Amino acid sequence: MQILTTIAGTRAASRLLRQNGPIAFVPTMGALHAGHLSLVAHARTLCPTVAASIFVNPLQFGPNEDFDRYPRTLARDAAMLEAAGVDLLFAPSVAELVPASSATTVDPGPLASLLDGAARPGHFRGVATIVTKLFHILQPEIACFGQKDAVQLAILRQLVRDLCLPTQIVACPIIRDPDGLALSSRNAYLTPAERETALALPRALALVQNSLANGTRLAALALAPAHAILTADANLALEYLVAVHPETLLTVTEITPGTLVAVAARVGKTRLIDNFLARNP
Amino acid sequence: MQILTTIAGTRAASRLLRQNGPIAFVPTMGALHAGHLSLVAHARTLCPTVAASIFVNPLQFGPNEDFDRYPRTLARDAAMLEAAGVDLLFAPSVAELVPASSATTVDPGPLASLLDGAARPGHFRGVATIVTKLFHILQPEIACFGQKDAVQLAILRQLVRDLCLPTQIVACPIIRDPDGLALSSRNAYLTPAERETALALPRALALVQNSLANGTRLAALALAPAHAILTADANLALEYLVAVHPETLLTVTEITPGTLVAVAARVGKTRLIDNFLARNP
Repeated sequence: MQILTTIAGTRAASRLLRQNGPIAFVPTMGALHAGHLSLVAHARTLCPTVAASIFVNPLQFGPNEDFDRYPRTLARDAAMLEAAGVDLLFAPSVAELVPASSATTVDPGPLASLLDGAARPGHFRGVATIVTKLFHILQPEIACFGQKDAVQLAILRQLVRDLCLPTQIVACPIIRDPDGLALSSRNAYLTPAERETALALPRALALVQNSLANGTRLAALALAPAHAILTADANLALEYLVAVHPETLLTVTEITPGTLVAVAARVGKTRLIDNFLARNP
Repeated sequence: MQILTTIAGTRAASRLLRQNGPIAFVPTMGALHAGHLSLVAHARTLCPTVAASIFVNPLQFGPNEDFDRYPRTLARDAAMLEAAGVDLLFAPSVAELVPASSATTVDPGPLASLLDGAARPGHFRGVATIVTKLFHILQPEIACFGQKDAVQLAILRQLVRDLCLPTQIVACPIIRDPDGLALSSRNAYLTPAERETALALPRALALVQNSLANGTRLAALALAPAHAILTADANLALEYLVAVHPETLLTVTEITPGTLVAVAARVGKTRLIDNFLARNP
């Protein structure tokens, strides 16, 4: 695996690699877990070459968020990616990818103010800007993102569509720990007690799935039991529990196949998200 | 010359053409004149394939600007581009390139509020958004723009740098009519009397060049005679006459080689711009 830190070097290396066929790309912020490795594994089935990036993007952190304490474990991450079969790793510094002179940004428009964007002003503008830059540098045919970040996925699909980017976004399923908690680099922040509290998120979503399996498709009814358990624990601050269209993120009254049921909550200082897409009955 | 109106068709055609080597691209709003043809001629010296586009971009017109009356002369333009040696012309409809659902935009940041951007709020966001889309569709190695739109040039160079676009911006010299007026599609709006008034722009710039040739490099002194003639005619509304850094667009006190000396004014309803880059003494 090549590890590159400069834009110019990565551009040249990816140009060479593209002679072997298209590139599938897995952008990450490092602190890798099995969720990231599942993206790499899926990417390998799609293209002869897999590129990954590790960049803790300052543009997508708010002033009071966890940019400084976000886990940085580059050596371990690089070894994991190499073992997973990644061909090229781009791991630039902030000065390389977001120099102080940088002024141009990619603005996702109204979608960036909904759900996670409402809680994190500027977050999705930062995501869209960096993803656009990474796509320009690596020019992948395909980019793999986790379904866990469902709002990010909606915004990146809109980005590709609106800006006519020649890269296809592929979503990969949420990977969970045996206790049901969706994998996240931020789970490392949780104390054992907080982790127990956090399990209310997957449990709440399971309740919604039960309601749907029982034929309750009206969102207000299907979400009610989940809402009850998410508001029952004083150690959990519910941010949203919604049923929305997966592309427009607009609330739906009836949950139909493809509807996104998503939850966000704070446990201690840690913000957690989880979701599922409603299936055919 | 292939004439294509769909994004998918143009993407496929440009992918095929890139097998012959890199593409040089000339984006236009049509209503072509010798300035545009000089861009095509220069593009032909740079790459084996030349692509052009014609698109009157609604995003870069303000609500009270001339989007509706902007000249549209597609058949004539296409014949001119074919005769000039263009291989591929992309001429999409507004619905194809800017569908109503489109929400993502490219924001140039503070540079977009200076000079022409101050007079035309949102203009350069519209330019940056469409140019980014066109670059994504055609994936040119090089794109040629006229030096006449000097602020646009600064913003597009910043765009390429900030977003790491794999396209190089090449500037081509201003082309003038025999009377000195810089070519512009909007010159067609001028009555004979307005055209005479408009000649104050190149005359004013020539005065600044004279001052520089005589060794006057302090901007305030070098611009003063030009300012006098630009404010002497009640039929001309001066918008700006400035000496600025060509990339930052910030005012300079001393004019040195490379300084951009630029003017904008309205004659009747028509907004005109002109400029030169100071040379070595």
